[in-house]
Amino acid sequence: MNPKIKWLRNQLDALKLEGMLVTNPVNVRYLTGLDAEGFLILAPKATMFVTDSRYIEAVNSTLTIDDEIIAYDRRELTKYDYEGFFMTCENIGFEENYVTYADYHKYLQKYQVSLVETEGLIEKQRILKEDDEIDLIRKACLITTKSFDYVINNIEYGMTEKDIAFMIEKEFVKNGADGLAFDSIVASGKNSSMPHAVPTDRIIEPGDIIQFDIGAKYKGYCSDFSRVVFVEELNPSLKDAYLFVKEQQKLLAENLKDGANIKEVIKERDLDFEKEKYDIYHAFGHGVGLEIHEDPVLRDNVDTILKEKTVIAIEPGVYDPGRFGIRIEDTFLVGKNGSEPLTNYSKDFKIIHLK
Amino acid sequence: MNPKIKWLRNQLDALKLEGMLVTNPVNVRYLTGLDAEGFLILAPKATMFVTDSRYIEAVNSTLTIDDEIIAYDRRELTKYDYEGFFMTCENIGFEENYVTYADYHKYLQKYQVSLVETEGLIEKQRILKEDDEIDLIRKACLITTKSFDYVINNIEYGMTEKDIAFMIEKEFVKNGADGLAFDSIVASGKNSSMPHAVPTDRIIEPGDIIQFDIGAKYKGYCSDFSRVVFVEELNPSLKDAYLFVKEQQKLLAENLKDGANIKEVIKERDLDFEKEKYDIYHAFGHGVGLEIHEDPVLRDNVDTILKEKTVIAIEPGVYDPGRFGIRIEDTFLVGKNGSEPLTNYSKDFKIIHLK
Repeated sequence: MNPKIKWLRNQLDALKLEGMLVTNPVNVRYLTGLDAEGFLILAPKATMFVTDSRYIEAVNSTLTIDDEIIAYDRRELTKYDYEGFFMTCENIGFEENYVTYADYHKYLQKYQVSLVETEGLIEKQRILKEDDEIDLIRKACLITTKSFDYVINNIEYGMTEKDIAFMIEKEFVKNGADGLAFDSIVASGKNSSMPHAVPTDRIIEPGDIIQFDIGAKYKGYCSDFSRVVFVEELNPSLKDAYLFVKEQQKLLAENLKDGANIKEVIKERDLDFEKEKYDIYHAFGHGVGLEIHEDPVLRDNVDTILKEKTVIAIEPGVYDPGRFGIRIEDTFLVGKNGSEPLTNYSKDFKIIHLK
Repeated sequence: MNPKIKWLRNQLDALKLEGMLVTNPVNVRYLTGLDAEGFLILAPKATMFVTDSRYIEAVNSTLTIDDEIIAYDRRELTKYDYEGFFMTCENIGFEENYVTYADYHKYLQKYQVSLVETEGLIEKQRILKEDDEIDLIRKACLITTKSFDYVINNIEYGMTEKDIAFMIEKEFVKNGADGLAFDSIVASGKNSSMPHAVPTDRIIEPGDIIQFDIGAKYKGYCSDFSRVVFVEELNPSLKDAYLFVKEQQKLLAENLKDGANIKEVIKERDLDFEKEKYDIYHAFGHGVGLEIHEDPVLRDNVDTILKEKTVIAIEPGVYDPGRFGIRIEDTFLVGKNGSEPLTNYSKDFKIIHLK
């Protein structure tokens, strides 16, 4: 049997659940490796993937006999099939954080069984990455930094933020990525002060800073990476802010390690921000995996002990609205003695030259 | 007051609801024009948009005093603020098709008010487009066909499906699009038989067909367009299938008009597919707007009367698994005498030449 399905079935046994509906597509992909629309029915005697005719050919060519997953075109299934899947069951798990209020009521009718909340069972398991998942994230990170290095050395006079965002995506794909893990941020000059800036038609000028926040996706897995570069010259008024952010990220990475409580690590950094009179505009980071934002969030109210093999993006940033923003971010693998960067790229002041 | 919020408040009055939580981001954008993460609270005395510090600067620069919408950074709001918004109310609407089962229970706690299902109230209104929305969709369609025309005339020897998908996205952006309305399908040779094929590294060869299914997004609004082209030569064995699909699309567009019942129009086409022994692999189309797939779906079980100013994609297709697929699709505006194509591009046999 597919080992992840086997793990899930053991968990369900322990929770006295006789089956589960897995409808969150990210969890379906995590459990099965399938990249197709559909959902999983874990019934007592069989695991079924219900998809539609658009995907059935692709799904059947991906699943192996060892998976012990039967694929169905949803048109083959009748009302009575659905009622029959859990006929012998009393309680079935469902994903209350994904299923809508309306669908919950539909499922009750359709499956004629009690649905029990599973409290992010699969999401929690996804926090701890397996070795093959870490390899895929590492590859996504490598594609990201390699592409970034190419892009910042090939920006031409007259290029806009949008042009650069395009060049990034093209490099990602050229270097083997599925595509973007999220919409790239390329924010120049005062646009950098918006943490979620969208690339504009603003032309890059000497004297600008450019804030990048980018990440490639590889075989479904994400990477997350931010750097600021200085165009043609270092802006001396931003030096202190830059060094502050760099130092904060270093301290976060040192302290976010196996056994650390997230809120305690973050609270120490909050104090530094307060001391320097910088407002905190967003969390200091988040888990990364099949989704760009996963658990755990790195906030001062998250009372969670970090464990080895968690992958997190650490991204402190300071902002002066309407003037500038500086954020440095890497994707890290949490280890015994601190977090190891998977996006390996210099954080020294970087001056780029337009071509 | 923002006219869409005014419309919604009138609807709520008629339903005896004293307010509403609008949390579906597409509905938030529809009502407010805001392109930022956050949700709307329609309380008896005020309309509030709750966002976070990443967006507050952008939101405040978009809203005008006429909107009568107050933007809040969510960190400014306390438990008591949330409890106070609906203090005088008994019943408040919520979006049961969007809100998760878990969030429904959280909202009950947070707002201390009864939540009532609104049955897709806003989504139903979104089916009928306003003139300014039609203009934006028309522009998205124009960008799509203009870019398509450029791309099919500039495919070089050695290019892969992925390369072409890239060229499409670049043209979209160059022509003013926000970006893709959905991931492009560029499926050559036998890959075309998968209705949801993902672009691969397969190199385009003379004798291939290429199935395109592409659409640009413009100011949030989508377009949807599919064509098949023949590389260097017409494949005579596919001629009949092509002409069948083209004729079916024509008949659909003629009959899908103001006052028509969708299921009756579709059932007639089902008979034609049956007569020619073609299986039906997917719906014949769907609504298009802020989302690429909206109501109404064009299926033989949809008992809905079409109305003027609905925008639909009509996309019949035939597939021979492992061999080929042919789908022709345009975005149409439903009118009194039939549907008018917004993607205007020839459906004659198109032979392209590699450069």
